[in-house]
Order: sequence, then structure tokens, then C-alpha cells
Amino acid sequence: MFTGLSAFTLTPLDEQRIDEPALARLVERAAAAGVDSLGVLGSTGSYAYLTREERRRVLEVAVSHAGRTPVLAGIGALRTRDVLAHAADAQQAGAAAVLLAPVSYQPLTPDEVFGLFEDVTAELSVPLVVYDNPTTTRFAFTDGLHAAIAQLPHVASIKIPPVPTDPAAAADRISALRALLPDGVTIGISGDASAATALTHGADAWYSVLAGILPELCVEVTRAALGSPDQAHDADRALALSARLAPLWDLFAQHGSLRVAAAAAEILGLTTGPSLPKPLRALDGEARAAVVRALGSLPPRDRQAS
Amino acid sequence: MFTGLSAFTLTPLDEQRIDEPALARLVERAAAAGVDSLGVLGSTGSYAYLTREERRRVLEVAVSHAGRTPVLAGIGALRTRDVLAHAADAQQAGAAAVLLAPVSYQPLTPDEVFGLFEDVTAELSVPLVVYDNPTTTRFAFTDGLHAAIAQLPHVASIKIPPVPTDPAAAADRISALRALLPDGVTIGISGDASAATALTHGADAWYSVLAGILPELCVEVTRAALGSPDQAHDADRALALSARLAPLWDLFAQHGSLRVAAAAAEILGLTTGPSLPKPLRALDGEARAAVVRALGSLPPRDRQAS
Repeated sequence: MFTGLSAFTLTPLDEQRIDEPALARLVERAAAAGVDSLGVLGSTGSYAYLTREERRRVLEVAVSHAGRTPVLAGIGALRTRDVLAHAADAQQAGAAAVLLAPVSYQPLTPDEVFGLFEDVTAELSVPLVVYDNPTTTRFAFTDGLHAAIAQLPHVASIKIPPVPTDPAAAADRISALRALLPDGVTIGISGDASAATALTHGADAWYSVLAGILPELCVEVTRAALGSPDQAHDADRALALSARLAPLWDLFAQHGSLRVAAAAAEILGLTTGPSLPKPLRALDGEARAAVVRALGSLPPRDRQAS
Repeated sequence: MFTGLSAFTLTPLDEQRIDEPALARLVERAAAAGVDSLGVLGSTGSYAYLTREERRRVLEVAVSHAGRTPVLAGIGALRTRDVLAHAADAQQAGAAAVLLAPVSYQPLTPDEVFGLFEDVTAELSVPLVVYDNPTTTRFAFTDGLHAAIAQLPHVASIKIPPVPTDPAAAADRISALRALLPDGVTIGISGDASAATALTHGADAWYSVLAGILPELCVEVTRAALGSPDQAHDADRALALSARLAPLWDLFAQHGSLRVAAAAAEILGLTTGPSLPKPLRALDGEARAAVVRALGSLPPRDRQAS
């Protein structure tokens, strides 16, 4: 579950409600494409903007439509009290693992972040993925802190931010972190633009925004990068497939992957609205036109809402 | 209400509950010292960590113990939907004004922040203070955006981050912003260390963390800086009083004002516990000892919980 491809799904929503049928379709689409796990209530799933009840409901819908594909559930919140409540809810809803970022309002110290993971892992009975996302949490993990947290019970994987584009530097980054981790704790890349580089240079998993929208294409990249029972790994092919997505990666960098993924889902007919909680705004005008163009250059298979 | 001194009170709490009697004492203490307004549910009041029900209750307690001192209520949240709910609650609880920061998880664009203030001011019937706190929101206002938001209905004041320590640079900063604002929209300084400099170089108000703990001392600084019906303004005295607090300002910079204020309240006997929501941790060891020393150097009047 902590290797291969994890598809992080949007939570289709408007200001009043969650669009449960659209969520179910996104989950089924990714599961049918053969992703190794589903990431629900990640940053792409707008977890930070939802109430406890909404989060519980999103998980229930996702688990009931995921079939045999395991569901990772985001449990982050500003307050430890709330993280513990989300962890309990996620386990009760049938999540196979939880994902935790050190969300902050007051900037957190390393001791506070360690304490958060200590408090939460002490109460868990499923594995935990450490979610290192400085863009949204504004907390910068040191490798020493990652090493300390990885020793805690239930820690199974670390979701790391983008690696350098230079392949040698990417390999160095991943091997330096791996040297500090207990055996069996995997390293997964987020930052879709650098995923093919990371997967072909030592990363075990891809925690992917795009796979929530275009799962077949991302499965193809991942199988090429890591190999599979049916095919030997083929790094060049993985990198070439990813390079074709450069227009999308540029848009991710420019507008944030959530805004682009939300626009893409709407353009592809997977959702009926922009799916961004206000004050976040849907892309419009030239930005949206650029997403249309980027999607239009993909193979027809990937452009179908199926 | 948007000039002079606003005392931002802690919300005394532990993991289970809010200590309402301690909150009432803090509010009464500041009101009795003659502050011009009370800032409740600001960053110092840990608003971002509280449920809607807790926030409503904090305001009810504060308003009922504030006497004739007007209460500014923080209404910030990640989602516009929740900000609107907090605004309605605050007005119903008797807040005289609201305070709004563009809290973020996904980094916000300037258009999104303008849209937030547009949506919220459209629903208000009390004045609003724009809360510019890049340390907690990670959003950097431009002066152009401040100017646009200040044109919206109900906008009465801007709470700005620290000004430069150099007096001429501080005066330039404040006058540059003022030139862009409609008449009557005041500028208030946060960042207590630079408050005396700001107040003596053009700021209208001090939105103060320390005044929640040591209100008499902060009233003295403010009256010296701005003058009052009883005394001519005396900039040198304001700056000298503030300079005596340098050890506290250093601790604010090192640990964040909330952690220091929470420790000071406990040390002075104003609260019975550290009052920080986990994962935030109370200062201990040498950091706490430094707060004890900094408080010990103050006049006995300010060290009494009265």
C-alpha cells in the first residue's frame, strides 16, 4: 500500500454540500485503473476546509466505492484534539492508513511537531504516512526530525515534497533520507512534476494529484518507472511519458495543483462545478484555457470521463 | 474604538475546556486599566484552534465582563462559509467590531483575499479590522490590496505587522500606507516591540498582545505616545517605557508572542495552566526562567494579578 501509485482524489463540493455521486465516480475511476491506493482527504481533497462530519462522510463514500483498493485518509488539523478525533473517525470508516501533515496557524517548533506525531501514533491501530508539505503547512522538516518520527510506532511511509530536477541530485536526496529511516518505511514523492524522476531514482511510491484525474496515464508512468509483474521497468519510458505532461506541470507550478486539478475535473466532465471551497477561486479566462489546451494534447483515452 | 490601545486577551484553556472564570478576570483586568478596546479571539486568543461553539462562548463571556469597553472579535477561518458563520455569531454576541485575517492552508492569491473581504463585508453590520499577520497567515498584503480592501463597506482599520525599528523608516512606512487609505480608516500596529515607535510616528492604534497581560503598563505607553485629555504626548517617555521591556520583546521574537504571553499569564497567577492548545507547547526550562526574569524586572504594580 505504501509503494507504487496512490491517487489523491478531489472532494467535489460547492459552498453548501459535497457532491457524493461525483466523489464516488472519481474513486471508482481510479480504482478501476489499478492504482495501488487511494488518498482521500489529502490537500487535493480539501480536508482542511471540511467539518468533522463532512470528512467522515467523504471517507464513508470513498471506502464504499474503492472496492479492494486501500484508502489512505488525511487526518490533519490545527489542533491535536481534532487530529485524534479525525484519526478515530477514519479508522471507524474503514481507512487502511492515515496521512498526517503538521498543519499550522502559529508556526510550529520541531518539538511540537514531534509531540504531535507521538500523541497521534500512540492512539492508532493502522499505519501512518508522514505528510511533509511545506507549501501548505509552512513547516520545514529536517532529516533528523524525519528520522525521529519514523521510529514511532505505525509510521509506514513519508510523503516528501518535490525532489530536484537533476537526476543525480534527486537520487542523492532520496538516498540521504533513506539512510536515516528504519527498514520498511517507504519514501513517496509528491509534486507530480518530479515524480518520474523520483521513482526512477529511488522513491518507492508516488502520492499523486494527477492520478485522481488521469489515473490510467499515471499508472502507466508508475509501472514503467518501477516495473510490474507484467513488464520490466523502463526508466526512459517513464521519463518520456512525464515529459509529455510538461504543460500540466507548468500550470501546477503557476496556480497550485489543486486549482488545476479542480479545473481539469470540471473540463473532463468528472465534476459539475469548480469544487474549490471559497475563498479559493476556480481558474478562469486564460488560465482555464491553458488547462483545456494541456488536456487536449493528451491521448483520447485519458480525456474521457469513462 | 480604532484608536489608542486594544488589549488582545488570551483564551485560557486546556485540552478539554475553556477556563471561563480566568477569561473573565483577564477581560475585567484590561477593562479596569482603561484600554480603549478588547481584542478577543485574536491570534493571542487562539481562535484558529477553537470550535464554533467555543468561539461563541468566549465572546459571550468577554462581552459580559467588558463593561463599557468595546470588544473586537476575531472571525477568521480557512473557509469563507465559516468566516460568515463566525461573523454572525460575533454580532449576535454583542461584538462592537470584527477582525479578519486571510487564514490559509492553500496559499491564497490576492484576488482570493479581496474576494474574502468582499464576501464578508457584504454581510456585516459592524465595522471590520483587516488583520495583516503574515507570520500566521503566510499571506503578504501589498499596499495596493490594502487600498482596495479599505474601500469596502465597514472597513474601519488595518492591523499591520511590525514597522522598521528605524524611526524615519517607520514614519515612511506608515505615511505611505495612509496615503492610500480613505479618510477615517485607521492604522494600528501589532508586533508589540515596535509599537512605541509606530505610535510616535503616525500609527493611530496599538493592537497589543502584552496589554492582555500587563494592561496598565501598556496604557501608560499609549497615553505617553498619543497624549490624552490629561496629558500632552511625550514620545521620549513612550519610547523609554517600551525600551525597558526589551527582554520581553526579545522573548516574543524568539518564541512567538503567544507562547510568552501564555507563560507570563501563568507566572503572574492570571491563569492556572499554560493555556496553549496542543500541539503548541508551553515554554519550559530556560525559556520559562527567562520569562520569570523579564517579569521580575517590572515595577511591582505590573507584577500583581490584582
